[in-house]
Amino acid sequence: MVKIAVIHGPNLNLLGLREPEVYGALNLEQINARMQELARAEDMELRITQSNHEGAIIDTIHAALEWADAIVINPGAYTHTSVAIRDAITAVRLPTVEVHLSNIHRRDSFRHHSYISPAAVGQVVGFGVHSYLLGLLAAKRVVEESRR
Amino acid sequence: MVKIAVIHGPNLNLLGLREPEVYGALNLEQINARMQELARAEDMELRITQSNHEGAIIDTIHAALEWADAIVINPGAYTHTSVAIRDAITAVRLPTVEVHLSNIHRRDSFRHHSYISPAAVGQVVGFGVHSYLLGLLAAKRVVEESRR
Amino acid sequence: MVKIAVIHGPNLNLLGLREPEVYGALNLEQINARMQELARAEDMELRITQSNHEGAIIDTIHAALEWADAIVINPGAYTHTSVAIRDAITAVRLPTVEVHLSNIHRRDSFRHHSYISPAAVGQVVGFGVHSYLLGLLAAKRVVEESRR
Amino acid sequence: MVKIAVIHGPNLNLLGLREPEVYGALNLEQINARMQELARAEDMELRITQSNHEGAIIDTIHAALEWADAIVINPGAYTHTSVAIRDAITAVRLPTVEVHLSNIHRRDSFRHHSYISPAAVGQVVGFGVHSYLLGLLAAKRVVEESRR
Amino acid sequence: MVKIAVIHGPNLNLLGLREPEVYGALNLEQINARMQELARAEDMELRITQSNHEGAIIDTIHAALEWADAIVINPGAYTHTSVAIRDAITAVRLPTVEVHLSNIHRRDSFRHHSYISPAAVGQVVGFGVHSYLLGLLAAKRVVEESRR
Amino acid sequence: MVKIAVIHGPNLNLLGLREPEVYGALNLEQINARMQELARAEDMELRITQSNHEGAIIDTIHAALEWADAIVINPGAYTHTSVAIRDAITAVRLPTVEVHLSNIHRRDSFRHHSYISPAAVGQVVGFGVHSYLLGLLAAKRVVEESRR
Amino acid sequence: MVKIAVIHGPNLNLLGLREPEVYGALNLEQINARMQELARAEDMELRITQSNHEGAIIDTIHAALEWADAIVINPGAYTHTSVAIRDAITAVRLPTVEVHLSNIHRRDSFRHHSYISPAAVGQVVGFGVHSYLLGLLAAKRVVEESRR
Amino acid sequence: MVKIAVIHGPNLNLLGLREPEVYGALNLEQINARMQELARAEDMELRITQSNHEGAIIDTIHAALEWADAIVINPGAYTHTSVAIRDAITAVRLPTVEVHLSNIHRRDSFRHHSYISPAAVGQVVGFGVHSYLLGLLAAKRVVEESRR
Amino acid sequence: MVKIAVIHGPNLNLLGLREPEVYGALNLEQINARMQELARAEDMELRITQSNHEGAIIDTIHAALEWADAIVINPGAYTHTSVAIRDAITAVRLPTVEVHLSNIHRRDSFRHHSYISPAAVGQVVGFGVHSYLLGLLAAKRVVEESRR
Amino acid sequence: MVKIAVIHGPNLNLLGLREPEVYGALNLEQINARMQELARAEDMELRITQSNHEGAIIDTIHAALEWADAIVINPGAYTHTSVAIRDAITAVRLPTVEVHLSNIHRRDSFRHHSYISPAAVGQVVGFGVHSYLLGLLAAKRVVEESRR
Amino acid sequence: MVKIAVIHGPNLNLLGLREPEVYGALNLEQINARMQELARAEDMELRITQSNHEGAIIDTIHAALEWADAIVINPGAYTHTSVAIRDAITAVRLPTVEVHLSNIHRRDSFRHHSYISPAAVGQVVGFGVHSYLLGLLAAKRVVEESRR
Amino acid sequence: MVKIAVIHGPNLNLLGLREPEVYGALNLEQINARMQELARAEDMELRITQSNHEGAIIDTIHAALEWADAIVINPGAYTHTSVAIRDAITAVRLPTVEVHLSNIHRRDSFRHHSYISPAAVGQVVGFGVHSYLLGLLAAKRVVEESRR
Repeated sequence: MVKIAVIHGPNLNLLGLREPEVYGALNLEQINARMQELARAEDMELRITQSNHEGAIIDTIHAALEWADAIVINPGAYTHTSVAIRDAITAVRLPTVEVHLSNIHRRDSFRHHSYISPAAVGQVVGFGVHSYLLGLLAAKRVVEESRR
Repeated sequence: MVKIAVIHGPNLNLLGLREPEVYGALNLEQINARMQELARAEDMELRITQSNHEGAIIDTIHAALEWADAIVINPGAYTHTSVAIRDAITAVRLPTVEVHLSNIHRRDSFRHHSYISPAAVGQVVGFGVHSYLLGLLAAKRVVEESRR
Repeated sequence: MVKIAVIHGPNLNLLGLREPEVYGALNLEQINARMQELARAEDMELRITQSNHEGAIIDTIHAALEWADAIVINPGAYTHTSVAIRDAITAVRLPTVEVHLSNIHRRDSFRHHSYISPAAVGQVVGFGVHSYLLGLLAAKRVVEESRR
Repeated sequence: MVKIAVIHGPNLNLLGLREPEVYGALNLEQINARMQELARAEDMELRITQSNHEGAIIDTIHAALEWADAIVINPGAYTHTSVAIRDAITAVRLPTVEVHLSNIHRRDSFRHHSYISPAAVGQVVGFGVHSYLLGLLAAKRVVEESRR
Repeated sequence: MVKIAVIHGPNLNLLGLREPEVYGALNLEQINARMQELARAEDMELRITQSNHEGAIIDTIHAALEWADAIVINPGAYTHTSVAIRDAITAVRLPTVEVHLSNIHRRDSFRHHSYISPAAVGQVVGFGVHSYLLGLLAAKRVVEESRR
Repeated sequence: MVKIAVIHGPNLNLLGLREPEVYGALNLEQINARMQELARAEDMELRITQSNHEGAIIDTIHAALEWADAIVINPGAYTHTSVAIRDAITAVRLPTVEVHLSNIHRRDSFRHHSYISPAAVGQVVGFGVHSYLLGLLAAKRVVEESRR
Repeated sequence: MVKIAVIHGPNLNLLGLREPEVYGALNLEQINARMQELARAEDMELRITQSNHEGAIIDTIHAALEWADAIVINPGAYTHTSVAIRDAITAVRLPTVEVHLSNIHRRDSFRHHSYISPAAVGQVVGFGVHSYLLGLLAAKRVVEESRR
Repeated sequence: MVKIAVIHGPNLNLLGLREPEVYGALNLEQINARMQELARAEDMELRITQSNHEGAIIDTIHAALEWADAIVINPGAYTHTSVAIRDAITAVRLPTVEVHLSNIHRRDSFRHHSYISPAAVGQVVGFGVHSYLLGLLAAKRVVEESRR
Repeated sequence: MVKIAVIHGPNLNLLGLREPEVYGALNLEQINARMQELARAEDMELRITQSNHEGAIIDTIHAALEWADAIVINPGAYTHTSVAIRDAITAVRLPTVEVHLSNIHRRDSFRHHSYISPAAVGQVVGFGVHSYLLGLLAAKRVVEESRR
Repeated sequence: MVKIAVIHGPNLNLLGLREPEVYGALNLEQINARMQELARAEDMELRITQSNHEGAIIDTIHAALEWADAIVINPGAYTHTSVAIRDAITAVRLPTVEVHLSNIHRRDSFRHHSYISPAAVGQVVGFGVHSYLLGLLAAKRVVEESRR
Repeated sequence: MVKIAVIHGPNLNLLGLREPEVYGALNLEQINARMQELARAEDMELRITQSNHEGAIIDTIHAALEWADAIVINPGAYTHTSVAIRDAITAVRLPTVEVHLSNIHRRDSFRHHSYISPAAVGQVVGFGVHSYLLGLLAAKRVVEESRR
Repeated sequence: MVKIAVIHGPNLNLLGLREPEVYGALNLEQINARMQELARAEDMELRITQSNHEGAIIDTIHAALEWADAIVINPGAYTHTSVAIRDAITAVRLPTVEVHLSNIHRRDSFRHHSYISPAAVGQVVGFGVHSYLLGLLAAKRVVEESRR
């Protein structure tokens, strides 16, 4: 069984309530349900958290050292400003997949740069809820290949 | 009655104790008292908070969705580094007025750029405590015009 | 009584006739009437001018030395290109409030930079006609405090 | 049945023969076989091409207008230099998924910028052959959702 | 007796467990023990904290106003992104020494810029645990000289 | 009949007298005569002005609102420095054609940027007096198409 | 008789089929017909080609040395990336007019820079099919003047 | 006899009244008297003007063509923003000496760049009224040498 | 015997016919003859190609894998724009010498940057036909040293 | 015993005589005496030199190869301009500690960049004479640790 | 009597022998003779040196402290690269006049920036030998005014 | 006979002793022997010098005026910082060939820019000792061609 820490960054608790034209109509609970459904089918264990606090996200990444095989993270706005989250990912050395609901390359230019990308294994960007689902599959593949 | 969430950002709890030549001689409690006095005269309800935590400020903005008509925020140093607070303001869609005690355009060049300004309705900058008082009046006008 | 020179910069003579979605539906005469109304209530004397000529605006600032206590200026497009108007404001040493009808931080990036801001006491930006009215109140406060 | 044009850009014909530490040990035929296998399982029709010629890739994108529902493209080095391929994708208006074998954000800085990303629906980056397989699944989801 | 607040920034709680080739083999407790040992020999009182939260670090700096003579801080990744911590240091006006375990000038270019350096008295950079020990000696010298 | 305001910017009154190797041997009167000749043949009415004053050019653009269908402007050096002329063109909403005698892309690099171009319908650059004549034909086409 | 090589760059074969709001409703054949019609009236001989291949466009420019008096080229996306086409134009020394259907200064910022402009005699930009027609007239004028 | 047009740019009419610590205690009339005194001793004829209008300065430069041998200009703030004045100097081809009262290299960074310098023969900067006097001597030397 | 693929990039087929003051009076056939002459004397086998097509040059580099010991390439204008040719050189891992007829550092600034240089063993620049001859000798030396 | 070459860069021979508010009241001999005192207490051998010549500093670094275990250098103004000193440090491979009397991050912006830092083991900055003393202790620690 | 150290920087020993079209026909001895002639007439004592060594120039500036009232320096190419000479000028606090034979603003762009200018009292640029003569007069004026 | 001054810049006296993986195993004497051997075969006279002093290198370049036909120089680190050496080369007008042992384009980015290149006839870069040998041949060719 592959164990994955799923982390939602700032403002994602408002999903579905606000700006559905950008982020889709699903709220965060529905996205989490879709992920748990896939996890059951693919034999993965997920622990899902959301926080608006940069420090709390770092604490969660550190805690994942104790139990998880990989991380799937949507860093939200911290993608563009947080060297500390990047360092946390590098420090724990867990394979990490970066996901985004929308195509950040079509938005403001300051959203084109990611501090997280060089610390991640890879990215899945722009497919709404499918970014999360494909990201989980990608994380599972990476863990399985490293076990061989 | 117009309801406004007033948010003081990092380091503003030290106001009046330190650097009066930059920020004026009033401390935060005195500023808050001046604002409540104006609120009574102008029939506004204010709830005022201060935090040094970026995440806590985001939480407060989210919570304002439940009760407030507008936000008046002095983001302090987060003005220049926080995409997450900007996204929170955009997400809740409450009219937001950005205020600063001092004229940030006369200080270090990295203080000339604001992530918050494009998400705000407008700015009042450089008038000490009057920045807050004029900012409250501006927020009230914006709310009243949107009600027509 | 507080005496204030109010200066409208280039293209503002077209206000109300053109682009009401950006600059509001009021024309310049209506804005001036609103300001004179406030001036009577607050015991201020206003002399209001508009010019499309950079040199004429400088002349007006110089002339204010003879009679005015403060300046309220909407420099329009000269905000972004005129070092000469900035130097005029610095030279006459009258407290100056910079106002803009629209939130310039939401428009083209070359409009984000202001040569005028460092020479001004402060800014009121983004509240339509209220930018002028709040700007007048701010100028009055600054004059009154300097008289104490 | 979802029909997808898969396009491999310059130098990818050498895959597997050279630099396996960067691009993996599979050669292009093996990658194509893995994609066809997935296509049979998921009821997709694939037509796969490779070219070192920028113009030939544009011709292939134009030709896809006649038969395909979506494009999956690994633009290789043209990612960073070709405005013409971007314009071709924009012109044909077929949903396009950009994939890369390696995490381009960990390589030379001139590889961090992509002309293609703003024209694509999304990206899958950094998972070796799984970038292609997850990219095909993503393309299928996008087509299916647009049909509803 | 010289009283010093020692502040460890984000991810430093993982020291010694991870990446010893960059940060040395000592863990944070061992570094703290080395500092307390020096403090006893040099008649200093130390209070040592670590946090991954930007806001919590600001709170600690504010609290130092009540008891400390100086601050020794390793701001970790917040070195490069936090204007708020810089403002906190400036506001409390305690002499502050910035330390780094590794030579940040040999790492990624975005780590070459420090928001903290202009607010600090000086820096000790690149000597592993000795950066902290030399930093404490430097802070003591600065306090002693200001007392004369 | 199509009515066009033709505006010559600063220093163009010296044409023909000076630097014929750059600007051609014709003086401004000869250029104006060539334009009037074309206007008679093509049934256009032209009113032609020249000024070295930025403000006077803005006044002329505003005045064109009363009578003209289009503007043909050679902004000379103001091409590269005047946001105010750009705003005037945008405000009056008359279709505007930008012309230059010489190929500005072959001259100093600061002449490669134009504030006017984004506000204009199009440009004709580099053909000497023919830039004006072709620019008049272009303006006429644009007006006729908008009338259909 | 003036002989002109007309060259259409990448993606222009899709004209009329796609994005008529940007490029107009005419397809490439209709544009070519309008050009041939003008050529007959003005006694010009045109040979018109289109290619999506940078190398093929260079070959065509070289071949023009054998027969043509001038070149009219719409380089499409290669405008912004091709030093090789620029060098080809410089090498053959035929007078070359650069044309664009749309005003490239109103589009993405990376479209504001042209490698071709300094090698061309001049530009006609932003008038749809009239850009080509005016460009042909300009090329004819340049050839006739050089013959005197 | 050498004839020189002396041109004072914007805000220089306020000299002596304001900011003597930057510009010296002499007013413009006193400076002009010092120049006329030197002119009599050195057999020069001076015509001295001041204007706050960019266009009026250009007109004066053009008019100098009729009578002057050289120009001495202090362009004030237009030094940094006016391509049009530079073009006027280039167009009239009179030898031009640029002078500044204060050392502009010690002031704001945007004052370090001069559009005028490349069009001038030379500069005299930072010697107060002596900048003008040395500038006149320099202009005289240049004229005399060109006469030989 | 050392086998070398010699590749001439875009526009070099025009050598000798055009711009002899920049590129010398020899045409491409004469240069090729000089190289073959040297090859006979130095016991090298050369296969020489020229193309204006970026893709064709990549194909030629790939094909060299089958038979050649080294590559000597004059990438012409693709020097400055082609990441794909650079990747091809890196992929085939043949020692590659970059040559240029003229000193590219004395020409336009965009010609100072080379994508090819970091992938090449070295450069010979600025000696006309001798750049090729010295480049062949250099390539031979590199191959011979790698054989020891 | 640890042997250390101490190198003072340009202008440091004037220390104490000039600008005590920036560099402290001690002159170079007094600083050297303080270092020798520490050296006796800590069993170090020091050879101290000062030069205003970039080349002489390089010679001294080369000569240190013969006898020294480490280098402590205050490169003065050469910190910001000398690649040659940096290369000398890299070439001799002696552990090198960079020291500065004042906090260079609080001075002119061109003093924020150091060519020396990436070649040094670490830095001690901003503590006056203590920067040298702490720098010697740091150098001793580095040598002792490398001997184990 | 005013005593002045005159310093010629690198390559100026070649004056008159080489490039008279840039630097004039006089050699360094003739320039020195012209300066000594002026010195006798104006009652100044000059000591003139030339060096190609940055360090030797610094030594000369330091030595001037013992005897001179002012410095006149033509730093040659060190103008653009030497922070150390700038610091020497600042350290000795002698009024310093920077002179250049040619107008450096008409030459390469890297010659437009001067490290020396902010440390100097003023500049005289572009008048050949008169730059030195006017510079001596300027230095004398500055010394005389400081004596009052 | 062709006479050539060969100049080795800073740190090259350490060649062979240090960092053979970057600069090769030959020391400077061996390289010089190889050059003298070639000189005998090719009938050249060489005078070879090395210095770590920028000023001494300039003196050597000046002295070459008396006897040499050409210069071959490896400016080492001064390549990137010395305008003075560039000016010396320009002043003496001897044809100069710039050589580098290693491919500077593969090293730190600040080593990609050369002040020397625009003053040199050409460069030979990246071939170890062969850079010098090929550089001598190139210099000889240039001299011989200029004699014809």
